[in-house]
Amino acid sequence: METVKIFELSKEYLEHLRESIAEENVSFIRESMEGAKKADIAAILDELNMEEALFVLRTLDPGYSADILIELDEDPQYKVIKAMEPSELATLIDHMESDDAVDILNQLVVKDREAVISQLEQKEKSLHIIELLRYDEDSAGGLMAKEFIKANLNWTVVQTIEEIRRQAENVDKIYSIYVVDNKEKLIGRVALKKIILASSETRIGDLYEDNIISVPTYMEGEEVAEIMRKYDLEAVPVVNVKNKLVGRITVDDILDLIREQAEEDIQAMTGITDDVEESDSVYRLSRARLPWLLIGIVGGLMGAGFIGFFEEGLSAVTALAFFIPLITATGGNVGIQSSTLVVQSLANKSVFEDSLLKRFIKVLLVAVLNGLVLAAFVLATVVFMYGQDIQFAFVVAIALFSVVLLASFMGTLTPIVLDKIGINPAVASGPFITTANDLLGLAVYFTVATLLLNL
Amino acid sequence: METVKIFELSKEYLEHLRESIAEENVSFIRESMEGAKKADIAAILDELNMEEALFVLRTLDPGYSADILIELDEDPQYKVIKAMEPSELATLIDHMESDDAVDILNQLVVKDREAVISQLEQKEKSLHIIELLRYDEDSAGGLMAKEFIKANLNWTVVQTIEEIRRQAENVDKIYSIYVVDNKEKLIGRVALKKIILASSETRIGDLYEDNIISVPTYMEGEEVAEIMRKYDLEAVPVVNVKNKLVGRITVDDILDLIREQAEEDIQAMTGITDDVEESDSVYRLSRARLPWLLIGIVGGLMGAGFIGFFEEGLSAVTALAFFIPLITATGGNVGIQSSTLVVQSLANKSVFEDSLLKRFIKVLLVAVLNGLVLAAFVLATVVFMYGQDIQFAFVVAIALFSVVLLASFMGTLTPIVLDKIGINPAVASGPFITTANDLLGLAVYFTVATLLLNL
Repeated sequence: METVKIFELSKEYLEHLRESIAEENVSFIRESMEGAKKADIAAILDELNMEEALFVLRTLDPGYSADILIELDEDPQYKVIKAMEPSELATLIDHMESDDAVDILNQLVVKDREAVISQLEQKEKSLHIIELLRYDEDSAGGLMAKEFIKANLNWTVVQTIEEIRRQAENVDKIYSIYVVDNKEKLIGRVALKKIILASSETRIGDLYEDNIISVPTYMEGEEVAEIMRKYDLEAVPVVNVKNKLVGRITVDDILDLIREQAEEDIQAMTGITDDVEESDSVYRLSRARLPWLLIGIVGGLMGAGFIGFFEEGLSAVTALAFFIPLITATGGNVGIQSSTLVVQSLANKSVFEDSLLKRFIKVLLVAVLNGLVLAAFVLATVVFMYGQDIQFAFVVAIALFSVVLLASFMGTLTPIVLDKIGINPAVASGPFITTANDLLGLAVYFTVATLLLNL
Repeated sequence: METVKIFELSKEYLEHLRESIAEENVSFIRESMEGAKKADIAAILDELNMEEALFVLRTLDPGYSADILIELDEDPQYKVIKAMEPSELATLIDHMESDDAVDILNQLVVKDREAVISQLEQKEKSLHIIELLRYDEDSAGGLMAKEFIKANLNWTVVQTIEEIRRQAENVDKIYSIYVVDNKEKLIGRVALKKIILASSETRIGDLYEDNIISVPTYMEGEEVAEIMRKYDLEAVPVVNVKNKLVGRITVDDILDLIREQAEEDIQAMTGITDDVEESDSVYRLSRARLPWLLIGIVGGLMGAGFIGFFEEGLSAVTALAFFIPLITATGGNVGIQSSTLVVQSLANKSVFEDSLLKRFIKVLLVAVLNGLVLAAFVLATVVFMYGQDIQFAFVVAIALFSVVLLASFMGTLTPIVLDKIGINPAVASGPFITTANDLLGLAVYFTVATLLLNL
């Protein structure tokens, strides 16, 4: 055994696999993939074209193929699903847990979806799937699976073990047994460890922990993730409005969700509007980037119009133009720093928030401190290195100081306002703040110049 | 039971608690906190001052206090630890799992740390802690705990259950039993579910799965997180260079790590150099933000010097100044978008990377496409809305197109180069790219202007 035993992913193997697919060399495919982790096989299939990937999935055991299909990247997964016959897809879905089955079915149009569901072998699973399809994909209901172990309050340990045995095939990961009363309401949980150590005739009612955390079906995925992180949960039960136990969310799905979220947040901050990867098509990449670039361009053109108002003053003091980039860049940098801190504190909301006034006083203090340091540095440089007269240097320094102050407020206020009116502050803060601060910086700069230099 | 049963966090409770602490009303503190989740109590203690928090921790049961201490925020945690007597801290550490104990001890100077360790009650735990203190905090060794269940290949199920019973107190979360050979080498695992369903006399050797993923002690935490996400693991065993099982990392620690990482990445992108929160002190916030603001200022001053070279041309055609913000902003926006995509693809490295040449051709195509759209838009606006002559409009449009191309390459190349020379590309990409692209944009703009307008 190697330290990290993963499948040997190499270009050589990929080539060899492609040849075997072309030659329909089924035994090479089966043997070389035997015992490999599903995530590794999926990474290989992501590199193949649709026909090749489909051939491999048809070659392997359906239970294994089902696991691999779930792990495929979005694009290849969609292509393979679209290419499969309903009966073929139904066979794979019969081997999936219900949450994964729903993720796959959600990619089909309603007609195809129903064709697949009608061909499922297990009646119970199709009912589960139909139930789960009702929930929003990003809600707890959309994330949960119907596979979990529950025990009635009045059962004994032996009865519970029997239930585990009955469900062992369907439920891949068992961490706890959820305890319900006669009305199926969730009242607690028993760790698997306790089941092992208890004597056979112990009643579940004497064993369970009632201080259990559950989430409602309508809770947003991001909030579920935060609850699981905060309370160190590997799984969380999901209940409906009547507190009836309806599903379970496991931490592996949450890890995927958190990664996607983090990537999307960063992309949103840099004005990439669609969830793209470097490997996506030129057209998709271009389309995801253009909207915010265009908004930046409109901002730049407005800035040009704005500077145009001061054409006379600019002709009189050409040096004013030299420091335009200094002013706009600093405004942008300060603004994005401020908005980032606010967006992060909005994401980690606490009941004990400081009041708005207290927060703004702090923003003001940080801005004054940084603004003074930067303005002093610029004042000295403009006089001593660039040999400008002191009055002109003061114009630049005062403008810079004002821009630091204003950009701090803009950067702080924008996400708070966006959050209040229900827009994701991370999405709109980044490029919006930069563009707005460019304009703000120019306005301050030329106003200060006009006033102090009597232009 | 509520749907999400969490402790009632309110300002009213906080006030009441403060009064009870002042009055040393021990029974109110104990009763009001009974059964509350440790993370919720920690959130309340974070709001108290050090003496108040310490009073609460001393009031509660040591096992409970130990859990709460682990969950405290960095600053209040440090203050409380520093204020405790070695013997008092040792009592709490006796109730912690080894990884948490090490996180606490790592905050003390060596002398204090040894004073605490010498007073631990459990000899085994102090040996474990001393072992763990050797590892880098961000490595698998630094993240792992010494508490886990292992079984010898030759044990029966009954023997294994006996081991679980013996360790049940120490090991909070049991997901799998790790199987070792006579030399303590990791050879596989048995899910707890299988132990429950197997008959008592079954040999572990007949039950275990050998296709197990483990990580070496020296692996970086971020890589461990990616492995756990990819392979859907709730815990991963850690082995030393001889493949001896030495520890276990559970997913709850990984969730914390991922969140910190995501916040730090975003902060790094915006030029915040220290891991700060909105609630930190003015001084700390200011200090974390100044370095990159200063670098931006130096860039702006260099830009000023640069534009100064073209003073004559600028006097001749004042309108050139109008479009400076347009050029620098677009350069910055394009650069940060490009670098973000590269940084994310570097973070999700695949063996099947496209060659550098292929990636650059793609970058070129996206840049040409976006550059043409933006340049055409600007050309039309400058002529029709701003009434500039067509030759001047072409200068702006051509400069803009060139800037989009160059910024795309800069944005793509910089993180790749940084990664190659071993610098975290996320840290240096953001503010560096923006500043460098401002300068690049100015150079292109004035060069194109000089050539086309014969300045």
